[in-house]
Amino acid sequence: MKAVILAAGKGERLSKGKSKLNAKPKPLIPLLGLSLLERAIVSAKESGIYDFVIVVGYRSEEVVKYVEEKQNRLGLNIDFVENEEWEKGNGLSVLKARDSLQEKEDFVLLMCDHVFDSSILKELLEYAKNRIGKCVLCVDEPENVFDLEDATKILLERNKPNAIGKGIKNYNAVDCGIFYCTPAIFNALEAEKGKGKYELSDAVQCLIECDKLEVFDIGGRFWCDIDTPESLEYAKNKMLTSLEKPTDGIISKCINRKISKRITARIVNTNLTPTQITIISFIMALASAAFFLLGEHKYLIIGGILAQASSIIDGCDGEVARLKFLTTDYGAFVDSILDRYADGIMILGLIFGYWMLHGGISVWIIGLVALLGSFMISYTNARYEGVFEKPGGNRGIPIRRDMRLFMIMIGAFLNQVLGLMLLLAILTNLEVVRRVFSIKRIITKTKF
Amino acid sequence: MKAVILAAGKGERLSKGKSKLNAKPKPLIPLLGLSLLERAIVSAKESGIYDFVIVVGYRSEEVVKYVEEKQNRLGLNIDFVENEEWEKGNGLSVLKARDSLQEKEDFVLLMCDHVFDSSILKELLEYAKNRIGKCVLCVDEPENVFDLEDATKILLERNKPNAIGKGIKNYNAVDCGIFYCTPAIFNALEAEKGKGKYELSDAVQCLIECDKLEVFDIGGRFWCDIDTPESLEYAKNKMLTSLEKPTDGIISKCINRKISKRITARIVNTNLTPTQITIISFIMALASAAFFLLGEHKYLIIGGILAQASSIIDGCDGEVARLKFLTTDYGAFVDSILDRYADGIMILGLIFGYWMLHGGISVWIIGLVALLGSFMISYTNARYEGVFEKPGGNRGIPIRRDMRLFMIMIGAFLNQVLGLMLLLAILTNLEVVRRVFSIKRIITKTKF
Repeated sequence: MKAVILAAGKGERLSKGKSKLNAKPKPLIPLLGLSLLERAIVSAKESGIYDFVIVVGYRSEEVVKYVEEKQNRLGLNIDFVENEEWEKGNGLSVLKARDSLQEKEDFVLLMCDHVFDSSILKELLEYAKNRIGKCVLCVDEPENVFDLEDATKILLERNKPNAIGKGIKNYNAVDCGIFYCTPAIFNALEAEKGKGKYELSDAVQCLIECDKLEVFDIGGRFWCDIDTPESLEYAKNKMLTSLEKPTDGIISKCINRKISKRITARIVNTNLTPTQITIISFIMALASAAFFLLGEHKYLIIGGILAQASSIIDGCDGEVARLKFLTTDYGAFVDSILDRYADGIMILGLIFGYWMLHGGISVWIIGLVALLGSFMISYTNARYEGVFEKPGGNRGIPIRRDMRLFMIMIGAFLNQVLGLMLLLAILTNLEVVRRVFSIKRIITKTKF
Repeated sequence: MKAVILAAGKGERLSKGKSKLNAKPKPLIPLLGLSLLERAIVSAKESGIYDFVIVVGYRSEEVVKYVEEKQNRLGLNIDFVENEEWEKGNGLSVLKARDSLQEKEDFVLLMCDHVFDSSILKELLEYAKNRIGKCVLCVDEPENVFDLEDATKILLERNKPNAIGKGIKNYNAVDCGIFYCTPAIFNALEAEKGKGKYELSDAVQCLIECDKLEVFDIGGRFWCDIDTPESLEYAKNKMLTSLEKPTDGIISKCINRKISKRITARIVNTNLTPTQITIISFIMALASAAFFLLGEHKYLIIGGILAQASSIIDGCDGEVARLKFLTTDYGAFVDSILDRYADGIMILGLIFGYWMLHGGISVWIIGLVALLGSFMISYTNARYEGVFEKPGGNRGIPIRRDMRLFMIMIGAFLNQVLGLMLLLAILTNLEVVRRVFSIKRIITKTKF
């Protein structure tokens, strides 16, 4: 399957007020670490598309050069087509791609200025499989659209498209700019071109009239047409919010994620890789343990702040990875291993620091049981996923890593290492016992 | 799908030399914790068969009573059919089952005196799905058969059966007694009965002649026809050997499994459940830790022996579960949680015992790092399975639980707790580092 990406536009409204030197052509405008065009390409790659035809127009040389520099790293086949009449209408750009496709080849048509949740395209491809001979256009409900005035509206009747256009008065859906096309689109474009109509939506209206168009409801997932600085900001915020996970713990949800999102929004524009961020977070944990070792209250406070900071930064690696389509199982694996070492070393630091100042064996014993419990929380999670092949859920005593590191910070602030260890020892091990019994209940329920 | 199980025979050769009171009817003869008949039933249940017709004959009341007592616990539908002419030939027993089946129903035919690897039946059912209208008989190569003289031989030509019978001279395969039947078998049995032939193999010869029989090669997996005390012993040994896992560590393979198999062979005949065995092993580990706490060499020796004994018994729970078809994901989950606690508590006992006698903080620090490393070995395994959905393999530094507990015993015997902790600390953490890098290599290789 090939994807045709329209990247010929200027993006005038986006670069308003900037000199030509400062203003980038629309496809190269950055959004959370990737340019709009690169984001469209990688989103399609996520759905298993490795062959691309990119239609360039405005400042085409710059755009081609930019993509060619990335092409090897991405491992994709990319053809470029120039549309010198890019100012006339986007329908012409689609027509220009015709010669780069096989005669009877279906393809996906994307706009570089439309960002979208990549799962939409995956499902569109699945859906279109059973609609042989039909073009399928992704649609959303009007209330989900940021700039409704500028959107291409659609009138659906009994789920079948009836009319399309920016100006139609009567509508109940909006075109998301993600389009599964059969070659029929080219005939429609040619016919409209003959009438002096150069917009894609003119051709789509033509497809509607000869019953060659179906729609696919994206079910409220994220997409956005980027035309103005406001819509760029809107998309950015939506995408940052989507980084919150339903499995986030309490502290993660209320504190860590709110801060890490902001940090991620900045570092995503640098060259920092997720692995480097993982390592930074690990080093902060080691530094925290070093301060704990010193034992005195003032050092404990610094260590506590570092522990909580490390916990926050620990969220950024995954966030950057997801925004830049760099998530890997291996990254998640290494992250979890380093987290466990960090947990162990911080607790060891706290125990040793306390013992140096106060002596006594009780901190060692209680600390060891706290360490055992902390580990068992992570281990039961990992084992649960290994055995039952799905994440372990989020109920029970909230004593996962976000909470444990937060408690370590509070304990350090209050200079109450022994009390902290006791609390950790009790809560973690209690939660492990609860898990063992609650999992038994789940299994008994679901079994034959 | 229904299964018809023939359980009408006497098993004369098996009860040779025993009085009638002591000799059980063949279906009730025990083999590693289950009677032959129960084993046949549960093996079929493993393949998703929940409806049974059991043909009884010799001492039928005893057999029926035995099964009825188990029926509820097994959650199965079981009909009984009596064949009073059981001495005539097993073909008659099959005919008796006819009225308990739907008119056009395919079914599986099993002999209660044939034990087999339950995966064979699973695959037979899959295979037969694509052979509509054909009976399918499981066959093995003659060299795999324990008592070839007594076996039912088959001559295959180009993988098609040509002749069947105990007495045929020319053969290249053997009937395993696992048989997917269409109702055609009843017509064949009726026809043969008219000629005064009452053996199942006569009817199968008839199926061959009208091209209604195919064969399924079981690919060398285990099965055995139990007719004599020797074949019973052979099957027992084969099944015990099958308990060894390819993922077993060195100590497990060379020492633990050899002993645990023998223990399992005995306790499988008691009412001890796998969970109870898990708990016994855990209590032995706690007792070991208690002796370690006392610190002196003589107590260390006792603790060391208990640690290694606990490691051996830890193998028995899974072995008993597999022999009795009682394996559950939950059982494996709880076992792994208790193992981790046992590991932690034993190391804690060793540290504390040593410190009480010798003082000093080094044993605490080194011990904690050893604990951290031990955990990380188990954690990387669990995470690997969670992330990559397959077991983590068996290469690298052999420092899994079997080796760690063996090292603890040796360390305790030599009264070298500090050296032991140092060795554990180094080897476990080194292996974790190796795993992190080797997994990266595997991923890079297999990825697109």
